Amino acid sequence: MIVRIIGAGLLGASAGLALMARGTEVQLEDASPHAAGLAEDLGAGRVAQKNDPDPDLVIVATPPDVVADCVNDALRRFPAATVTDVASVKAIIQSEIDPESAERYVGSHPMAGRERSGAVSADADLFVGRPWVIVGSHCTPEALSMIKLLAIDVGAIPIEMGAEAHDEAVARVSHVPQLLSSLMAARLVDTDATSLSLSGQGLRDVTRLAVSDPTLWSSIISGNSSRVAQVLREVQADLSTLIDSVDQIDARAGSYAGVAGVASIVSAGNTGVSRIPGKHGGAPVRYGFVTVLVPDKPGELGRLFTEVGSIGINIEDLSLEHSAGAQVGRARLAIVPSRIGELIDGLESRGWVIAETDVGE
Amino acid sequence: MIVRIIGAGLLGASAGLALMARGTEVQLEDASPHAAGLAEDLGAGRVAQKNDPDPDLVIVATPPDVVADCVNDALRRFPAATVTDVASVKAIIQSEIDPESAERYVGSHPMAGRERSGAVSADADLFVGRPWVIVGSHCTPEALSMIKLLAIDVGAIPIEMGAEAHDEAVARVSHVPQLLSSLMAARLVDTDATSLSLSGQGLRDVTRLAVSDPTLWSSIISGNSSRVAQVLREVQADLSTLIDSVDQIDARAGSYAGVAGVASIVSAGNTGVSRIPGKHGGAPVRYGFVTVLVPDKPGELGRLFTEVGSIGINIEDLSLEHSAGAQVGRARLAIVPSRIGELIDGLESRGWVIAETDVGE
Repeated sequence: MIVRIIGAGLLGASAGLALMARGTEVQLEDASPHAAGLAEDLGAGRVAQKNDPDPDLVIVATPPDVVADCVNDALRRFPAATVTDVASVKAIIQSEIDPESAERYVGSHPMAGRERSGAVSADADLFVGRPWVIVGSHCTPEALSMIKLLAIDVGAIPIEMGAEAHDEAVARVSHVPQLLSSLMAARLVDTDATSLSLSGQGLRDVTRLAVSDPTLWSSIISGNSSRVAQVLREVQADLSTLIDSVDQIDARAGSYAGVAGVASIVSAGNTGVSRIPGKHGGAPVRYGFVTVLVPDKPGELGRLFTEVGSIGINIEDLSLEHSAGAQVGRARLAIVPSRIGELIDGLESRGWVIAETDVGE
Repeated sequence: MIVRIIGAGLLGASAGLALMARGTEVQLEDASPHAAGLAEDLGAGRVAQKNDPDPDLVIVATPPDVVADCVNDALRRFPAATVTDVASVKAIIQSEIDPESAERYVGSHPMAGRERSGAVSADADLFVGRPWVIVGSHCTPEALSMIKLLAIDVGAIPIEMGAEAHDEAVARVSHVPQLLSSLMAARLVDTDATSLSLSGQGLRDVTRLAVSDPTLWSSIISGNSSRVAQVLREVQADLSTLIDSVDQIDARAGSYAGVAGVASIVSAGNTGVSRIPGKHGGAPVRYGFVTVLVPDKPGELGRLFTEVGSIGINIEDLSLEHSAGAQVGRARLAIVPSRIGELIDGLESRGWVIAETDVGE
């Protein structure tokens, strides 16, 4: 089995590292000889040579705007190879694939997002435990199997979807959340520092995605513009209804006509968020939460988590919160609700201060 | 010093516990004798009696819709006392205070949010390290000092603001983030399960607030409706511009006129999020990030953090991420960028797998 990777950036070089670690022969190709050489130095494969044997599998990992051309070129150059790409939008690429070779093309989207790019950030474990969407509308069963095995080989979890369904899904679970986070953060550009000092964990959560790169994201949105616009219009309609409701409220005049409208959108949000799968892709689970005060110095968090472990309780999720001016943090531990009492007793007997408990529902 | 607490719910009972722990005499009052008795049983004070001496300080911690009436009633009943309240919206209450006694009224807003209510969830440490906004427009300097000392006594950090400035600030850093999170989550109500299986940490962050209680939040928004509507209109204007930009993009037709508009809103989000203060209220700091693979069993997180502590590095922030189907989690540690190399070397020499590194900027 020989794999050719075209585009030696973050995803390409990471796939190369993962495949090399499993003993697969990897040929590297990049428009920039420097980038290909760097990936080779990192151990992601060997720079492709003129007389190399043809690959069995080609992974196109170039920037999104040249993916379709590179896939078609690879299908022509390697007439026996299966070709995949790793771009984050699928329908537009599928529509540009040469129909005569489409049975050898399988679209991929490994859900391995990150903030930094380039082979220097590459990692053999980048795909471990991540969903890897596989779009195989016109391909042979053999081509589809080959890409499924590729995903499994690099540690990912293959999920088969149609191109349209994939693009609709990422518009909703990735692209629009990104844009709403940016829209919220944009409201802070002219906010004074005193107001911002009241910021809590909620604002930080909502705006965390807003650090993302404008060039990358405008390019991603461009490839999925009609579906993103559709979901944004749904948000726009709800937002207009919400503003109408808020406008009908005038507490000083005793007018509360719009309160039900506000409650209704918060309630719809309750329903929506409960549908996001919990850890390990299982059904959403309601955890209990215990918030512990943690002195802000090295080793204290470690001591906390070691002691939770010694009580024999698994931490399902956690978040850390700091407050303006305080030299103490608050660690919020999510655990199965049935063991909350045991955890509190165990921690308090070890001298920890429990700031807050939420037994879940 | 005698404190009377009117309203023995979560905030009232927590304040009572904190003050009792510091040796202050606390009188408890509640429209429900049962609630007052429960708070007494929990150690938050003693149920007020007919012949009790007058308090020096009254804390009104009733539901928002009766706060102003309760404050005015307390100002009448206890003509020498300073009176404060803890409601999360301030201007509307201030406007309803009897002007003749306004010099003894100081508004408060302890920023101690939580998901569960009632005295049973009360905690003496609820306010520790949290900002406590103090609004003292018409009061005497003595009244203001008394409330500042109250905040400090329960472990909070007093921040003085005007009522209008406070309400404008919370509209922006708390109320609108809540509503945008709900608007995003509402888009998931009709999303199919396969699409939702692609959900990543980004969607979870944006929608975390959407679990909040509709009744509570529609009541909070009602008290601040005009300012919330104003910020929502700003979002609406940006959203319309964004939709226009996305509509101008048609990658299949080679039309990219709207790309700059999309990049511009993501870029404004970059600027906004960078203005949120970092931990301990200091200037925002750029951390480096190291993501470590953690087996999903008790004690492993503890071992990780203990070993980070033994390397002598302080964890500034952290988040845990799980992927669909994987029995391994990803712990993302934020540390000062200058020590990333040292952390990676230390962890790898102890057998940990580093999944990702981001050296910051």
